[in-house]
Amino acid sequence: MDYKKEALISHEKWQGKIEINFRCPIETKDNLSIAYTPGVAEPCLEISKNTDLSYKYTRRGNLVAVVTDGTAVLGLGDIGPEAGMPVMEGKCVLFKAFGNVDAFPLCIRSKDVDEIVKTISLLAGSFGGINLEDIAAPRCFEIERKLKEVCDIPIFHDDQHGTAVVSAAAMIGACRLTKKNLQDLKAVVSGAGAAAIAVTRLLMALGLKDVILCDRKGAIFEGRDGLNPEKEAMAKITNKNKVSGTLADVMVGADVVFGLSGPGVISQDMICSMNPDPIVFVMSNPTPEIFPEDALSAGAAVVGTGRSDYPNQINNLLAFPGIFRGALDVRASDINDEMKVAAAYAIANLIDEKNLAPDRIIIEPTDPRVAPAVAKAVAAAAKESGVARIQEK
Amino acid sequence: MDYKKEALISHEKWQGKIEINFRCPIETKDNLSIAYTPGVAEPCLEISKNTDLSYKYTRRGNLVAVVTDGTAVLGLGDIGPEAGMPVMEGKCVLFKAFGNVDAFPLCIRSKDVDEIVKTISLLAGSFGGINLEDIAAPRCFEIERKLKEVCDIPIFHDDQHGTAVVSAAAMIGACRLTKKNLQDLKAVVSGAGAAAIAVTRLLMALGLKDVILCDRKGAIFEGRDGLNPEKEAMAKITNKNKVSGTLADVMVGADVVFGLSGPGVISQDMICSMNPDPIVFVMSNPTPEIFPEDALSAGAAVVGTGRSDYPNQINNLLAFPGIFRGALDVRASDINDEMKVAAAYAIANLIDEKNLAPDRIIIEPTDPRVAPAVAKAVAAAAKESGVARIQEK
Repeated sequence: MDYKKEALISHEKWQGKIEINFRCPIETKDNLSIAYTPGVAEPCLEISKNTDLSYKYTRRGNLVAVVTDGTAVLGLGDIGPEAGMPVMEGKCVLFKAFGNVDAFPLCIRSKDVDEIVKTISLLAGSFGGINLEDIAAPRCFEIERKLKEVCDIPIFHDDQHGTAVVSAAAMIGACRLTKKNLQDLKAVVSGAGAAAIAVTRLLMALGLKDVILCDRKGAIFEGRDGLNPEKEAMAKITNKNKVSGTLADVMVGADVVFGLSGPGVISQDMICSMNPDPIVFVMSNPTPEIFPEDALSAGAAVVGTGRSDYPNQINNLLAFPGIFRGALDVRASDINDEMKVAAAYAIANLIDEKNLAPDRIIIEPTDPRVAPAVAKAVAAAAKESGVARIQEK
Repeated sequence: MDYKKEALISHEKWQGKIEINFRCPIETKDNLSIAYTPGVAEPCLEISKNTDLSYKYTRRGNLVAVVTDGTAVLGLGDIGPEAGMPVMEGKCVLFKAFGNVDAFPLCIRSKDVDEIVKTISLLAGSFGGINLEDIAAPRCFEIERKLKEVCDIPIFHDDQHGTAVVSAAAMIGACRLTKKNLQDLKAVVSGAGAAAIAVTRLLMALGLKDVILCDRKGAIFEGRDGLNPEKEAMAKITNKNKVSGTLADVMVGADVVFGLSGPGVISQDMICSMNPDPIVFVMSNPTPEIFPEDALSAGAAVVGTGRSDYPNQINNLLAFPGIFRGALDVRASDINDEMKVAAAYAIANLIDEKNLAPDRIIIEPTDPRVAPAVAKAVAAAAKESGVARIQEK
């Protein structure tokens, strides 16, 4: 199918992929007197006495804003806020279809961190959570950090943390398949952007100890020139031996490589130089760091990509609907590491060890069991880690 | 029915009066590849080349934000942004039910004019129009004026202009019934807030010449003490003879009185002091300036109120769904006076002169003919006045 042509025709036909409908009867005058004036004054007055009641009397408890500034949309880069909206609407469709979460897209006409933070924080009373989307690094780090400080609802940058959760789930599956222990492995991450850093941090939360990140200049180590604050922070907690060199240099003897960089930067020779049965995740999309068939013929034990036409797709759809579903169900004030780790295990556990295979280390993103399992695990982790504000609905 | 109790029970049951649904199929992998990646990149790229295409490929062309700061909610006053949300959701329900407009509620946690303006203007790329709601005067004037300067989409403060359009429609009906000419009448407006000023301005656009506004200190005239900038501006264009005195004083010999102030401020004696067959609109809600039965027994020819349990209800529902429907249909850049006047006549014209009666000068707000008639008239006026950016959809 010619997706390009079909997408334009379909988007024009749909005139928007989402719409807003009502949930209350409005046929009679009595209906209107309850849903609107004069009856509506009562829930207003109740909420004015206790703001938390907005979760009881309005849609807030099921409502997430999908917010972008349009600066890092898909692989297209900075195409502008309005141009990011078809992706944001699509994300909202997936939120509803897979997590029964009402999600609304907002694009912000600003690239200024403080303006974006102010705008979102002033709207936080309208929503139960904020999903940040397609905001360029390093601005996305600061926006997320500042929003978490000022907002009383979960803030989640999906490009970072959704990718991290699903990567971690795939990693758990790959370790189970190859009978390896994550804490004993040597890992290399190609890329040091938002997703690469989030993936590395979450794998470390899962037990990974030996990991080196590489940017275009090669291995990142403490004291290296040209590190932004985020890379500097990563240099402090990774690459303990301060190894320098190119991506090819540091991949020698590695057990795992994560590609979160760009097309074609990993060669068959680099795969050959890794330890036996290497685990290869190459998520550059649509063209991966190395194509699966080439990685497999060079000795990879298992390969995952971002593409739906290869096995083992690392797709954020596995994570975000269930994560927000679970967070909303217990009115979590945050989406913390404990909840992300729980989500990763919930996804990984959907494949029995006996069904694991090199072309099946992670479940299909559209499997209907995924979001409920993730939601349940995330809600439980929220309660255990003390960020749940109510028991499950 | 006990609306108070019923409203709380129903709002809790509904858990929000609106929800977000999708308009595209998502059953198959091909569906997802068109609505989301990789296909979605195509409409994104098209919009990045021409921002106007966001109206073609996203929901923007049918989408209105209903925005409040929660400072003047119903008659409840400054109850806070979250507490305003049940009203905003109700408004969104009415937008969809009567105008097929997708409307989304946003409450802003700020009372600062510039913060509110900045927030809305940064979000303007997500919407086809902005309906301001329940924002206290005089802040609402400045917010609307500044937003109109910086935004390329219609900005409409319903409490001002929706009320003005429906009041004007009722006035047209009352003049037709009583065979009076608006331009010959002497009118008094009790109140000098946002709605009172907007009503006065629109009636003047329709031809009214002799009008006096009264605030709590009495008649407003040029040079009077204690006038805010908005009242001062009105003093320059009304009350040409600089009449001073109380509301009772200036009502002597008037043909029309508009109550947009508070309960019970008009007495039967004041009605008796007016010219023969006076026209009385008393919109304070739920308790009007004078009850209709009292006004009628004191000689009023026709009485309109804001209440649904009396004849001649002046209900904004007659205006806003059709006004935004018409504005969106021609992608209007503004909602100007021409469009408001056209809306008022479209509403008034839905009652044939032969069907006019003292208890029937304006059509029922839930009549299904209203919004289409208003939309058609508003779209035509937008085209004639040069603010339409496309021909009708």
